[in-house]
Amino acid sequence: MREHMMNANRLPTRILGLDPGLRRTGWGVLAVEGSRMTHIAHGVITPDEKAEFADRLLHLFEGITAVIEQHRPDEAAVEEVFLNTNAQSTLKLGHARAAALIAPARAGLLVAEYSTRLVKKAVVGTGAADKAQIGFMIARLLPTAGKTTADCADALAVAITHANLRVANRRVA
Amino acid sequence: MREHMMNANRLPTRILGLDPGLRRTGWGVLAVEGSRMTHIAHGVITPDEKAEFADRLLHLFEGITAVIEQHRPDEAAVEEVFLNTNAQSTLKLGHARAAALIAPARAGLLVAEYSTRLVKKAVVGTGAADKAQIGFMIARLLPTAGKTTADCADALAVAITHANLRVANRRVA
Repeated sequence: MREHMMNANRLPTRILGLDPGLRRTGWGVLAVEGSRMTHIAHGVITPDEKAEFADRLLHLFEGITAVIEQHRPDEAAVEEVFLNTNAQSTLKLGHARAAALIAPARAGLLVAEYSTRLVKKAVVGTGAADKAQIGFMIARLLPTAGKTTADCADALAVAITHANLRVANRRVA
Repeated sequence: MREHMMNANRLPTRILGLDPGLRRTGWGVLAVEGSRMTHIAHGVITPDEKAEFADRLLHLFEGITAVIEQHRPDEAAVEEVFLNTNAQSTLKLGHARAAALIAPARAGLLVAEYSTRLVKKAVVGTGAADKAQIGFMIARLLPTAGKTTADCADALAVAITHANLRVANRRVA
């Protein structure tokens, strides 16, 4: 009982959202307290495209690890990726996405996964939303975030999705 | 000059071979001195299939990291994977393979990649070799390895491939 109360009174939960890609991995961190969300930080990790493949993956892994060490999120939410018609591209995307799953899991964070369609539905209201609509809703929901590129907006969108769904899940429980 | 000589006189180079898979990742370590190869160890990492996806990847990553800490390889060789006709399977395989690339890269090892066809050609002499032929050649080339499962034989085969090709590359240089 006491633990439960302490938990309710603790600091806001911090959520790390990740939009994984081999060339650009967007990240965003929110603080959530009840239904209140505050923007903490966002950015993009861009490994050198000329580096060896293993080193590009390591760059993503270490970049995400550095974000976790700096912003101390409690939970992570990672966007699922589109399956490319080109199998080689799909394989590469799988490699990049693994870095975005292993780094937070290794740091002891809960790691949730959401489909792009669900993220769009949770943030804009329709699973067919375009990038401009997501950018618009990020600016409305997180007014202190300032200008965001598409990668960062997608990362913040998956963090928002997790923030909303984890509250909804808790209400059900 | 002195450094170069010290390098020539140093201990045998240890090579870690990895055959990545989400359900089973085979690994094998060899020591190489000139054209002489010695089996050091091999095994298989099998994450719990019922665990969360991120935790299965973390299990692979930590398992490989533990092998590196125990056997201290100098270089790693990772098998490229078949592109499955099922895009979802290809994506999952990409995730698993990333763990096999990031873990040795993070430990500071050189990480080489070889196609399955090249591994078969290097070990058996034909790119169309089957599992039984690979097992037979592993037993001949590494008599102290004892019985090996297919995953471990494939991992040792990619390590042998790297051992042979890195020597060939050095002769050319």
